[in-house]
This record gives sequence, C-alpha cells and structure tokens, in this order.
Amino acid sequence: MLSKDMIEIGSKRSTIREIFEFGKRRAEIVGRDKIYDFSIGNPNVPAPESVKEAILDILENEDSTVVHGYTSAQGDDKVRESIADSINKRFGTNYTKNNLYMTIGAAASISICFKALSCKDDEFITFAPFFPEYRCFVEATGAKLIVVEANIENFQINFKEFEKSINKNTKAVIINSPNNPSGVVYSEETILKLTKLLKEKSKEYGHTIYLISDEPYREIVYKGVEVPYITKYYDNTFVCYSYSKSLSLPGERIGYVLVPNEIENFQDTYAAICGAGRVLGYVNAPSLFQRVVAKCADQTSDVSIYERNKELLYNGLIEMGYKCVEPGGAFYLFPQSLEADAKAFCERAKKYDLLLVPGDDFGCPGHVRISYCVQTEQIVNALPIFKKLAEEYNITK
Amino acid sequence: MLSKDMIEIGSKRSTIREIFEFGKRRAEIVGRDKIYDFSIGNPNVPAPESVKEAILDILENEDSTVVHGYTSAQGDDKVRESIADSINKRFGTNYTKNNLYMTIGAAASISICFKALSCKDDEFITFAPFFPEYRCFVEATGAKLIVVEANIENFQINFKEFEKSINKNTKAVIINSPNNPSGVVYSEETILKLTKLLKEKSKEYGHTIYLISDEPYREIVYKGVEVPYITKYYDNTFVCYSYSKSLSLPGERIGYVLVPNEIENFQDTYAAICGAGRVLGYVNAPSLFQRVVAKCADQTSDVSIYERNKELLYNGLIEMGYKCVEPGGAFYLFPQSLEADAKAFCERAKKYDLLLVPGDDFGCPGHVRISYCVQTEQIVNALPIFKKLAEEYNITK
Repeated sequence: MLSKDMIEIGSKRSTIREIFEFGKRRAEIVGRDKIYDFSIGNPNVPAPESVKEAILDILENEDSTVVHGYTSAQGDDKVRESIADSINKRFGTNYTKNNLYMTIGAAASISICFKALSCKDDEFITFAPFFPEYRCFVEATGAKLIVVEANIENFQINFKEFEKSINKNTKAVIINSPNNPSGVVYSEETILKLTKLLKEKSKEYGHTIYLISDEPYREIVYKGVEVPYITKYYDNTFVCYSYSKSLSLPGERIGYVLVPNEIENFQDTYAAICGAGRVLGYVNAPSLFQRVVAKCADQTSDVSIYERNKELLYNGLIEMGYKCVEPGGAFYLFPQSLEADAKAFCERAKKYDLLLVPGDDFGCPGHVRISYCVQTEQIVNALPIFKKLAEEYNITK
Repeated sequence: MLSKDMIEIGSKRSTIREIFEFGKRRAEIVGRDKIYDFSIGNPNVPAPESVKEAILDILENEDSTVVHGYTSAQGDDKVRESIADSINKRFGTNYTKNNLYMTIGAAASISICFKALSCKDDEFITFAPFFPEYRCFVEATGAKLIVVEANIENFQINFKEFEKSINKNTKAVIINSPNNPSGVVYSEETILKLTKLLKEKSKEYGHTIYLISDEPYREIVYKGVEVPYITKYYDNTFVCYSYSKSLSLPGERIGYVLVPNEIENFQDTYAAICGAGRVLGYVNAPSLFQRVVAKCADQTSDVSIYERNKELLYNGLIEMGYKCVEPGGAFYLFPQSLEADAKAFCERAKKYDLLLVPGDDFGCPGHVRISYCVQTEQIVNALPIFKKLAEEYNITK
C-alpha cells in the first residue's frame, strides 16, 4: 500500500551514503583517524571567513522577520541582482534578476529542470561517468535517463555513442563539468562539438533539445584550466548552480537555476521553472543563506588545498602504477580499479578501512571514485594502503 | 515542448503569492504604512532571541565544515534526538531519533508523505477550508485530491460529506489543525470521531487509510485551547511539522515528518519516506537550522501578540456585523465575505489597499482569509476600512 518504488529507493539509499554511514559507524569503533573515508563529497575546506561575517552582519543589522521570512518563490530580488552582477562580472554576460531562480541546492536545481521539461515519453541523456542521483530525479518525473558510455581515455564525451543515443524523444542533455566523479573539465572543443550536434539534431527532429549544465564545481578548478560558460555556446541552456562546493556549504542547500533570455520561449520557460519549484514543495530557497551567498558571490573556499591534495594523491597513485585521468577540477579522482570488478576491489580496500566508491553506480564499471576533499594528512596516511593494495594485485612498478 | 502543467502552475502562481506581490509593488508607490496587507502568513512576531543566540553559539563553537556540511539524509542524529526528547516531554510520547525525518519545512513534509504513499488511482481526502498547495503536491504525485465541503457552522469536520467521499481508492486523509485559513482547532471529539471512522473504513476496504496531520500551527494556540496529539488516537499517522510559525522561521525551510513505531510496517514506511525525500531532491534539511531548532525545540515566538491581534480584529469585525467563527489558534480569521462572490468582495477591499484572500482557493467560497500576523497598528488602521466596507454593503449593526 506504500509506493514500492519509494520503499526500494529509500531502503537502498545511494551507495555513497551507504559507505559514508558505514565509515561513521567504523569511526566510532576504531577512531576517526584510523578510517580513510574517501566516500563523500563533503568539502573539508571550511567556508571562507566572509560567510561567518556575512551571517553576523545580517543578524546584527537586518530585521529578523525579514531575514527569516518568506522570500518570493524565485528568491529575494536584491539577492538575485547581486548574483546576476557577480556572474556578469566574471563571465562577461548580461543577466538580471529575471534570469535567476534561487533553489535549495543543485539537486533541486536539476530536479526543477527535469520537472519543468518532462513530458510523456521524454528521454534525458547524460554521459558516463555521471552523478547517480540523476537517475532518481529523472525517473521521478516519469521520464527515462539514457546514459552514454564513457570515453575512458580522457573522460571527454564519447560522441560516436552519443550520436546514436539521440532520437525524436530526446528532450535534454545533462552535462556536469568539472565532473563528479572524474574531476575532468570539458574542453572548449568538446563544448563546441556538443552544441553543434545539438543544434543539428534539434533541427533534424524539429524540436529543441535543451542542455542542462550542472555545475556545482565550476569554481573548483586548477591552474591553467578554463571552464567554458555554456550559455555563450548554446541558447537553450539551463545553468544549474550550487554554493555547496564553492563556498563549502553543502548542508545549507542553496543554489540557483539560470535561464538565459535567449532560450526558446523565455517567459514560458521561466514560468515552467517556477511551476516545477512549486509542485516539488520547495517554497523558497533558505532565506538567511540567500542573503549570505549574495554577499559572498565573488568568493570561493581555498581551492589550493584541493589542488595540493590532488597533486599528492594523483602523483602518488600514478607512481604506484594506478591508471588515472588527471582531473582539472572538482575534488575527485577516478582511477581504474585494480581488478575488473570495482565492487570487489572496493571490498578489498574496505578491509583496510579505506573507503572508496565503485564506479558502477556512476555508469562506469572498472573504476573507483576517490573524494579527496579530506584532510591532507588522511591522504598521506592512506597512500601506504593504496601501495599495499597495488602490491596485492602485483601491479607495482 | 515544456511541461504544460508546469507552465500553467508557474504562470498562475498561488493567489496568495499573487496578492502578496501586488502588495509589495503598491507599497513602493504609496508607502508600506498605507497598505493593509493581510495576504500572507509570514509571522510578524520575530524569532525568539534564543534563535540568534543559538546561531552565534554554533558558529562560535562548532566546526564550520560540520555545521555547514551534509548531514545524513534523515537529519543529524543529535538533532533528531533533541527533537524527540522535546516532543516526548511535551506530549508524554516515547519517540526516538528513528521516528523522525528532518525536512525543508511543512510543504516538503507533506510532499514527502504524498510521494511515499501515492500509487496508481490513489485518492487523498482533505477538508475545506484547506491550504490550496495541497492540490499541487498531491497532483504532482499523480494522485487525486478530494475535498470535503466545509462545515461553515464551526469549521469542524463535515462528517456526513466525509463518509460519502471515502472509497476503495482512499489512501490517506490530510488534516490541518490549527487550521489555515480558519484558525479553528479540531476538538478531541472531532479527532475521536474521525479516527474511529478511519479504523472502520480501513477494515471495510481491507487496507490502511493513513492520516497525515499537517501541524505547523500546533504551538500557536490561545488560552484554554488544547490540540490533541494525533498519534495517540490513530497509529497510522504521519505528523508533518514545521518551525516556520512556532519559531518565526518560514524562510529557513525547516521541519520534520514523524513516523510512529505503531504505524503499519514501520520499517518500510520510514524507508518510503526516505525514498520520497531523495527523489524529490531534498538531500538534507538545512544543516545550520537543523542545529538551531534542536536547541530551541521547546520554545515558541511570543504567541500573546497573535492573541492580542486576534482579539482586536475578531471583536472589531463581529462588532461591525461580520460573521466569523472564532479561531482557537494559528493567525488567520476566516469571516464570511459581505457578498456571495468573495473575489468581488476582495476586489472592492483592494480599492482601499486592503488585501484579503478570497476563500475560493481554500475550497470555501463566500469567505475571505485575513492573516493577522501583522503589526497591531496595521489592524488598528485597517478597522475603519473594514467598517467602511460594511457600510457599503449596509450590514452595519
């Protein structure tokens, strides 16, 4: 008499959450410093000091009933103005508050886009490796998620397979760059090829194929890497953003959907976003943190810590003989597992309390995700265990 | 190519939000003190000082990456323990953290219940007058909302009509007491009669009919009024709570679903709640405010201000000849409009910048909702306008 789907989804939980909960239980038994938990993307770099300052300033100087009160469903006007200004300044765009809809984080941003777009028989396409929750969110709207096989050479798009997967039911394509779980940033070449193909296919099938750009990691990029701003390449784009990673506020659930004026039927589209946010029960994005991110929109947590972690871990693993594409951003490494069955590999790692996430759920078997948004010390301590594993598999150089 | 439903729902917005936005625009033209906006349920009583103290304390003494980090999907363990303790202390119950699932406010709490329960052909029943967003949330799951006609004598349940509306497809009944928009509190007699009938009908149809108790106004009650704790009367109950009103934090989106152990198939049911929260993209309830409400769980904003407003407005209107059921709680008055067409009546009030919400959307035509969670001064200044309206309709005593 309950929804069977919901029981199943709620009982399984995500593999990531499952491993994370396991790690918490183990930590209570053997101590936190004995657990090498690389399972969850919870930033270890604290929010910039300006976040705390912003909170204190708002609490001190603004009216409590306003600060904690309802905002308009699309978000506070001034907040959206500040955020539009920040985007314009950084990316040379020309947005206003009317292009923004504040959300309770990236999961909400993309759920809203799926719900706003989804009609009978629709298909949404994404590229492996991909964030597994996409499947839940797409299927919750009644649509189907199509996953294009990974290009494991460099984790750019596998265009040959992609082209085959597009058909008359394709409603939208979801990209996530910098990518969770590979850390790879799509090159401008990839974006140009992708958007050219989408324009052609939209024409061929006589309807718009939308591009949903899920980019919570936009700000977490390393020296010399550029993340193209997608709306400059393709009009029918939704930008889904979250401050979870850039300001280290994943628990606070704050982000936005950006709808460019150039999108087909702007007014209806923005209305559909509002409608989707409404029926999904979001009401408004958390009001204090709307104001906080508006004040801190130009800032980012200290990315150099992630870059140092990346260097240490990536170089360490390569040295030991692991195969891995070098990430350009985010805080994930996605090496090949040392046996074909990534789950079996993760189980073996677990015996050493080394917690990794098998790539299978990301649509990319034979790989494991390592979230290195952890204390650098944890990486230092975990390297000998990675070494031991390599030795067990006889792959050491 | 967009979802037509979403465009429609997003274009119309809720009537309440529409009037609220109109009020904001008018205030900019004629000044805030010349607008008598009784449209929205945004508490005017500030959050208790302890909320601010809790925020400062947490920011000062806890680790930023934990405070702002992801919590378990069901909410932080310690937070849920504190809230269970507070409920037990106040209502003589015996809950633990395992009975609680933290949410982003009441809209999310009830959306989660609908999604967890909803199967093909399901019907959910509610009683007019009812919160109009119920319809959006129920229909978003593919189910149907059945509205039982109001008992306008006293806004208790119209049992005759209710019994007729129950059938083999009835999955759950949603109640909201203290009620938005009538302010009425269901008596123990009503609850006893309701739960007796639900037990009988569950037996008759061979399946459980659930009770969803949406109670964000539980704490806003006036002298001598008791709000029965529903799980004591009916095992198959979901309690949907929010701190929006009790702590004056509507913008922060923080609440919970309580699932009692006695509910049928507790484990599956709790799992379905988790599954629904997951597919709806909620991830976790805002992390800082989880901790804040845990610290302030025993407290309430100053209800005496609402009670004073109620006295002033209710007595004033009755004096003028308006017909109105006296509220026992919440911060709404739901008098009969002075002509059968409540929308026409509200339009006439609007000419004086007196903003009321027609009862039609609440499933109760011929009435208007007055949200009196406003400065007492606004009521004092609005009373002469109510008087003028009464004179226009020649109903003055």
